[in-house]
Amino acid sequence: MRVMIDISYDGSDFEGFAKQPHKNTVLDTLEQTLSKIYKVNIKAFGTSRTDSKVNALTQYVVFDPPFEINADNIVRAINSNLDGRIYCISAKYVRANYFPRHNVKTKTYSYTITSKYNPFHRNFEYFLKNQLDIVAMKKAASYLIGTHDFSSFCAANTDVKDKVRTIYSLQVKQIENKTIITINGDGFLYNMIRIIVGTLIVIGLGHKQADIMESILKAQDRSKAFSTAPAHGLLLEEIKLRIEDE
Amino acid sequence: MRVMIDISYDGSDFEGFAKQPHKNTVLDTLEQTLSKIYKVNIKAFGTSRTDSKVNALTQYVVFDPPFEINADNIVRAINSNLDGRIYCISAKYVRANYFPRHNVKTKTYSYTITSKYNPFHRNFEYFLKNQLDIVAMKKAASYLIGTHDFSSFCAANTDVKDKVRTIYSLQVKQIENKTIITINGDGFLYNMIRIIVGTLIVIGLGHKQADIMESILKAQDRSKAFSTAPAHGLLLEEIKLRIEDE
Repeated sequence: MRVMIDISYDGSDFEGFAKQPHKNTVLDTLEQTLSKIYKVNIKAFGTSRTDSKVNALTQYVVFDPPFEINADNIVRAINSNLDGRIYCISAKYVRANYFPRHNVKTKTYSYTITSKYNPFHRNFEYFLKNQLDIVAMKKAASYLIGTHDFSSFCAANTDVKDKVRTIYSLQVKQIENKTIITINGDGFLYNMIRIIVGTLIVIGLGHKQADIMESILKAQDRSKAFSTAPAHGLLLEEIKLRIEDE
Repeated sequence: MRVMIDISYDGSDFEGFAKQPHKNTVLDTLEQTLSKIYKVNIKAFGTSRTDSKVNALTQYVVFDPPFEINADNIVRAINSNLDGRIYCISAKYVRANYFPRHNVKTKTYSYTITSKYNPFHRNFEYFLKNQLDIVAMKKAASYLIGTHDFSSFCAANTDVKDKVRTIYSLQVKQIENKTIITINGDGFLYNMIRIIVGTLIVIGLGHKQADIMESILKAQDRSKAFSTAPAHGLLLEEIKLRIEDE
């Protein structure tokens, strides 16, 4: 018996999503809550790792409960045992060996930069006063769409071998005081989106021309791209799963 | 020499705005920051008291600095000494005896109720799953517009004698999953807006008819109105000051 829940969370107070010894992570907190509800130790598995301070509108987590509870009551039990920073949106029973992390079709992340500080949004918008050149950022972003080796946009401290990923769309929008970068792809390397955003910012500030993005991509060398943008601007927006496999 | 600053704050971690002995309030925090910047004890005075967990997009604060600093540098110094929960929007020099609290023309507050929980908005939206009857709430709200004795909507533990206030507008809007109540008036009694909102919610839930609002108002008796709505849904949006007096 396997349950899949969909959760959203404000990551600002957590040390990331994935379990870590002696750390306060989203998954650790969820496991404690599930273990309390079911009165046995529950192990839970997520779909997408998010770093410390990264937020999520959606995140699928599966676990195997020791007995059946109506799905709506699972949602209620989880939310009444949490303090609101993590919120369970829905729950459903899936087939016993369904593993969402192996069934990701695409993921969508967004990154929000604001030129007008708002204390209510401080944990999910990166505040940068300077004007950004959206046209240049859009042009730079266009070089990244498609299937490429993204080594230049992968944190050096990773042991992932295959650095080829597909970006289906990468949009840069200006809405009032906010610049919102939305990226959809089949998967992302460690810090990939934040390094892409950091590089787009350097271009948006006019410090580099848009076409530098093409040479950074081709270099397959992390040192050619620019700084990793701060974590709190990043939001996991959507995960599309292969449902036919459920 | 007097400086007036405009600040916004996320009130969720503070024990209200006004100074209180041994409490962590917005004004105490600001005074500590100003005292650090000017290296002497600074006393500061706000314009509108807000309760614990109430948020503000604007709030005017005055203080008398011991020496002159360029207004933009005051803003920078304040923000670089705070942690982001309080944010200084602007600063300007005003005449030496200008006191914003005595120069309020109108204040605008809004109250946000959401039927869809969002962990990122949990400190500034009141989560209430039930459907609200907006038409009934609008009708009930209309009875309160104008100049009235608002004793029925004033917390019992107050020593204010004159309970006559003028509400210029009181709007109830539905925007997607949110119900937003916006109130503009010349001033508000202690807990007045939260008691009005609590009473509008009882009517919106269909537990009482809209015209009960008229009899509650006429009763001039707090026990006739309903519960005070939770603080965190309330936001101080705007304060209009008499500028000719500056």
